Formats: sequence, structure tokens, C-alpha cells
Amino acid sequence: MNRKGILIIVSGFSGAGKGTIMKELTSRYEQYALSVSATTRAPRPGEEDGVAYFFRTKKEFEQMIEDGALIEYARYVDNYYGTPKAYVEEQLAAGHDVILEIEIQGARKIKEQYPDAVLLFVTTKDAMTLKERLEGRGTETPEVIAQRLARAVQESEGIEEYDYLVVNDVLEECVEQVHGIIDSEHQRIVRHKEKISKIREELKAFAKGE
Amino acid sequence: MNRKGILIIVSGFSGAGKGTIMKELTSRYEQYALSVSATTRAPRPGEEDGVAYFFRTKKEFEQMIEDGALIEYARYVDNYYGTPKAYVEEQLAAGHDVILEIEIQGARKIKEQYPDAVLLFVTTKDAMTLKERLEGRGTETPEVIAQRLARAVQESEGIEEYDYLVVNDVLEECVEQVHGIIDSEHQRIVRHKEKISKIREELKAFAKGE
Repeated sequence: MNRKGILIIVSGFSGAGKGTIMKELTSRYEQYALSVSATTRAPRPGEEDGVAYFFRTKKEFEQMIEDGALIEYARYVDNYYGTPKAYVEEQLAAGHDVILEIEIQGARKIKEQYPDAVLLFVTTKDAMTLKERLEGRGTETPEVIAQRLARAVQESEGIEEYDYLVVNDVLEECVEQVHGIIDSEHQRIVRHKEKISKIREELKAFAKGE
Repeated sequence: MNRKGILIIVSGFSGAGKGTIMKELTSRYEQYALSVSATTRAPRPGEEDGVAYFFRTKKEFEQMIEDGALIEYARYVDNYYGTPKAYVEEQLAAGHDVILEIEIQGARKIKEQYPDAVLLFVTTKDAMTLKERLEGRGTETPEVIAQRLARAVQESEGIEEYDYLVVNDVLEECVEQVHGIIDSEHQRIVRHKEKISKIREELKAFAKGE
């Protein structure tokens, strides 16, 4: 591939199907690479280092923070989670479009460092559909459902900061739509500055009779 | 259609195939409408009013200028050319994506009034290919070719102000790429502000147990 990869940030409502969309995209198209997070939490049985996560000790993780080796990181309860810069940059340089699933605070930090990143927000077709999914099969307690709804409200607060709204109604269509968005993003002028300069300089030379 | 149309501005090098792309798009997909310009030049044999152009007298055209009925206009030699606002707005309201072919000065004026317009710049795959097309079949004088190249240099000056670079190498692929860009643009957050507000308000109501 001779085109540079795009960093794609995917956020969205819990229950809107982000994970499925990303899984489908990466299995259908070779151009995508999922970003792998670093974490200090212990690997669960069967989890390999470098696949679901890069597993690091607390000391190693804090060294990465100090070295500026993470694009963003956050601490949940007693564990750190972060996005290693090296992995993302290698994948982008290799021409892969790197998909990174993260919530809004992380998305903002990444956008600051990668202004050409593309931010997607995944939603169900409407609020009622989301509510029904969060309610599950009627086996959840009212407290759990209330918590999930409160979280959805929170998740909805930053949508306007995203670039695209992805409506996951029919999965098949949704996956192709996301793929179409990324493909179109490759045609953005900002991603072709060198090519444009080259054409212009060559035309100028031709016009001078060179 | 329940989605609002997008205003699409197409510029590009003379000889890059803008016209063919637009013709293909409108013949393949019903969602597109070509903008029809108003002009004071006399109709040529077979030209119907309202198809290639809206033909107007100089007095009528100047009245349109005065009434603010044109999004942009320019005078070339002895004739006026302009984009009637009413036609564009009707088509957009009807859900059509309106395609408007225009050079950079006109594109700038339109973008000021329609900040959500999408600006496409059409190019050949490289400068040499453009040069060969401008040279034609070897029947042009060196002066004509020099003029065309000088014009291409001029046309290349504003490319960075556009949103997307459209490379017309294989026509078939190019037409589908443009269609993909427009489809993706429909998913932009800015075009879904109402939908987003609605989802957020409904989620808030659900979270309150309403």
C-alpha cells in the first residue's frame, strides 16, 4: 500500500454494537488494524500478551507514561489502561487504518495529537431501541437498568465533537457504511498535500516549457 | 427521502473529466440534481430554457442580483452567469444532492453562504496525463497548449481549499468514489444535529423513569 493509514476512533453507546462492527471490519478488510491497549490488569485465562492487551506491570506502565510512550491513558479502579504510541504509529506507517475504541475523554486527547484522526460515534437507530437493548431480556434489576440509562445519557453528551454518526440498524449495511466513510476519508485534501504540490510544480514546469 | 440534500461543488482541471463524472452520477442515481445556471448569453439552437441554462435578459439578470436571488454570479466578456438560489434551495429541500460545477472564486462565495457544502476537486492521476490531454491529438498550436497549461497552473492554486481530491483515472471507479464520498458526507455529525438532540432528550427522560 502506498497510502498512509488513518487513525479511526470509535465511540458510542454501550449496547450499540461497536465491538461487532469493528470485528466485522477487520475480518472483511485487510486494511484495518485494531489498536491494542496496554494495561496493568492481570491477564485472564487464555489472554495472550499483544493480542487483546499488552500486559504490563505497574512499574513498566508508569515508565511508559514518563517516556511519553502512550497517546492517552486512564486509571480505572486500581488498574491503568492506555494506548501505546509505537504500535499505532507502526500500523499507520504500514498503511493500515488503525481502529481504536475509546470513550470521549480519550478521544479528545487523541484528536489533539492526531488532528487528522476520524471520530465515529455509533448509535442505535433511536433511543427506544437502545433502551430495549439495555433492558436485556427482562432479567436485569431496575437498578442495573437505571445505571445503564444514566451511563447512556453521559455517553451522549459529547456526540457533537465527533465527525460521523454511524447508525447500527442493519449490521451488514452499517459495516459497509463505516468502510465507505474510511475510504472517502482517504480522499480528503489534507491527506494529499504532497501529491497536490507535486502536480502543481510539474504543471508550472510544463507551462514554462520545461 | 427524509434526509436533506447536500450542496456539492465540483471544480477541477479542464480536461480532467468533470462533466462526464457529473453526467454519469446523475444518470445512475436519482438522488442527484444538477444546478442550472442563469445566463444573459443567447440560447444556441436546441437549448431549452431551464435545462442547460435559465436564459435571462440583462435587465432581468441585474434585477436578480439586486433581489439577492443569486448565490454567486460573474461576468465573462459581455455576459453574466450566475447560480439561482431558489432552484438550489428547492432541490435541497426535496432531498436532492445538488451538484454545481464552478471555478474557485464561485466556490468560495458559495461556501460562505453554505458552510456545509462539500467541495470536490477533480484531477487526472498526475500532471503528465493532464498535459497529454491538453495537448489533444497533436493538432493544437503551441500557443493554445501553452495557454491551456497556464490555465491549469491557475486552476491548481486553490486546491487546498477543497474538501476532497477526486482522481479521475478509471471513470467507473471515479464515479463510484464520488458517490461514496457524498453518501459518507450524509453521515456527518453536523447533518444530524436534530436527531442527536432527540436521542439525548429521550434518553434523559428514560433515565428519569419517564
